Amino acid sequence: MEQGDCNFATEQTIGIIGLGLIGGSYAKGLRRLGTAKLIAVDVDEEALQAALADGVIDEGHQAGGEFLAQADMLIFCMAADAMLEFIRGNAAHFKDGAILTDVTGIKGDMARTIEGMLPAGVDFISGHPMAGREGKGYGMAQAEIFDGANYIIVPSPANKAEHIGKVRAMAYALGCAHVVTVSPEEHDKLIAYTSSLPHVLATALVNSEAMSPMTKFFVAGSFRDGTRVADINAPLWTKLFLSNKENLLYEIDRFGDALQTFADMLRREDTPAITQYLQQAAMRRRELVHEKHTH
Amino acid sequence: MEQGDCNFATEQTIGIIGLGLIGGSYAKGLRRLGTAKLIAVDVDEEALQAALADGVIDEGHQAGGEFLAQADMLIFCMAADAMLEFIRGNAAHFKDGAILTDVTGIKGDMARTIEGMLPAGVDFISGHPMAGREGKGYGMAQAEIFDGANYIIVPSPANKAEHIGKVRAMAYALGCAHVVTVSPEEHDKLIAYTSSLPHVLATALVNSEAMSPMTKFFVAGSFRDGTRVADINAPLWTKLFLSNKENLLYEIDRFGDALQTFADMLRREDTPAITQYLQQAAMRRRELVHEKHTH
Repeated sequence: MEQGDCNFATEQTIGIIGLGLIGGSYAKGLRRLGTAKLIAVDVDEEALQAALADGVIDEGHQAGGEFLAQADMLIFCMAADAMLEFIRGNAAHFKDGAILTDVTGIKGDMARTIEGMLPAGVDFISGHPMAGREGKGYGMAQAEIFDGANYIIVPSPANKAEHIGKVRAMAYALGCAHVVTVSPEEHDKLIAYTSSLPHVLATALVNSEAMSPMTKFFVAGSFRDGTRVADINAPLWTKLFLSNKENLLYEIDRFGDALQTFADMLRREDTPAITQYLQQAAMRRRELVHEKHTH
Repeated sequence: MEQGDCNFATEQTIGIIGLGLIGGSYAKGLRRLGTAKLIAVDVDEEALQAALADGVIDEGHQAGGEFLAQADMLIFCMAADAMLEFIRGNAAHFKDGAILTDVTGIKGDMARTIEGMLPAGVDFISGHPMAGREGKGYGMAQAEIFDGANYIIVPSPANKAEHIGKVRAMAYALGCAHVVTVSPEEHDKLIAYTSSLPHVLATALVNSEAMSPMTKFFVAGSFRDGTRVADINAPLWTKLFLSNKENLLYEIDRFGDALQTFADMLRREDTPAITQYLQQAAMRRRELVHEKHTH
C-alpha cells in the first residue's frame, strides 16, 4: 500500500504562506490531522485573525521574517511571481533541512530558479493538488477540498527522495486518493490539455459572435456546463496561459483538428462516422472521469 | 403579468405520447395540477403499469387508436421520426379542435410536414421546454424539471393564437419561468449555438489526441464540466446534428474563429488583449447564465 510507506508526522511546525482559499484549506486540513504548530503569512490581517479565532493557526504574520526558522515545512499558496519574491527576500530565514512546496499551476523552470536562491540544506519540492474550487479567500477554505483528489508532485533532480516522500505522506494524510510524480515538461503538457484548454474553450464559446436577445432563453445544460469556467479571474489566467504558451498553442491546434474532423463528417453526412465519433467520446469520458450524474 | 393572461384549464383530457423521462415529467406535472384525465401511449408496458400504479395516468395504451379522440391536447414526447409516423397513422382519430404539441429539439420544416397530415380542425403547436436531464425512462421522470425552466414555442402561420395561448398557459402552470416565441429558422440557429455546439465541443475535447496514462490524474474541474455531455447518446445526437447541419457547421466555423482570435493573441503575447478577452467572457457568462456556484 502506497500510503503505508510514508506516514505523516504531526510533531512538526508547518508554515502556510498565503492564507486564501487553498492556503486556508491546507491549514484546516493540517490542523485536523493534529499538526503541532501552524504559522501563516498573509497580507490580509482579517484572514489571519479569523484563522487564529478558529484555532486553525497558532501564529499569524503579515510578512516574512526570522520566525520562519521554526518551520519544518513551508507551503506556498500564492501566485508564482509573489512566491519568487517572498523566497528571494526570506531565503536566509529558512531552517536548515526545511522542505518547501507550492501549489502553482504551471511549472516550467520555476524549481530551478528557486533552487538557485536557496541555501544548500533547504529543498523545494514542487507540486499541487488537483483541487481548484470556485470562490476565493480564507472564508471559503475547507479541509474537504483534498478528499479523493489527485495530488501531483513534480520533483527536480536535486530533490531528496525522503523529502518527496514527506510531501506525498502529507497529501495522502490530507485525504488525496492518488499522488503521482511527473517531470515539469510532462506536467505542463498535461495541464495544457486538462485545464488550460477547457478554460480557453469555455471563454471562446461564450465569446463566439452568436449572441441575440433570445440567446439567454435557449441556454441548455450543456451550455451551462461548457461555459462554467468562463466566469474567469482574467489577470490570473492571462499569466497562466502566457506561462504555458507553447503547450497551449499546441493543444488549441490539436483541438482544432478534432473539431475539423467532426465538421468534415457532418458536411459529408457520414452517419456511421459521426456515430462512431460520438461513441468514442462517450467511452473516453467514462474512462477519464468517474462521477455520479448529479445534474 | 404574462401568466395572468392565460390560466391553465384543468378540466381537460390530455394524452402523453411517449412516457419516458420527458413524457413522464409532463404527466407528473399535469397530474399535480389536477388535470381531469391523463392518457399515455408507450410501447413499454412496464412504464405504463408504473404510471398507473402511481396514479399519474388514468389510461395506458401501447399503440394509438380511437381512444385518442378523448384528448383535448396531445403532447408528443418522442423523436421526430417516430412522431411523424404516429401522426400519419392516427390523424383520423384526433378530436376536432384538439391541440397537438411536441418536444423535439430541431424544428426545420417539421410543423409544415405535420400540418399536411392533419384534419382542418386539429392544430399542431411546436415547442419544447429547455429542460433536458441526464438519464432516461419513466423512472427518472419528475414534475420538477419544469421549475424555473424556459419554454420555447415555435408557432407556424397556421396556428390559432388561442391555441398558442393554451400551450403557453400549460408551460407556466407547470412551473416554467419564461415562455418565448420564435420562428423555426431562429429556433434552429439558436439551438445550434446553445445546445448542439457545446455537445460538439465536449466530444471534440475528449476525442483530441492528447491522451496519456497520466491524463486521468490531471483531470480538473474545468475538464470535468467541459466534457460532461461527452457521455452522449450517440445515435440520437447523430440524428440531431444531421437535422441541423447547416446551422451547426456555421457555429463550428464561428467558434473556430473565436478560438483562432485567442490563439493569435497568445502567439504574440498580447497581455492586455488576452485579459480583455477573458474579462468579456466572464461578463457574458454572468449575463447569460444566472446560477449559484454550487461546485
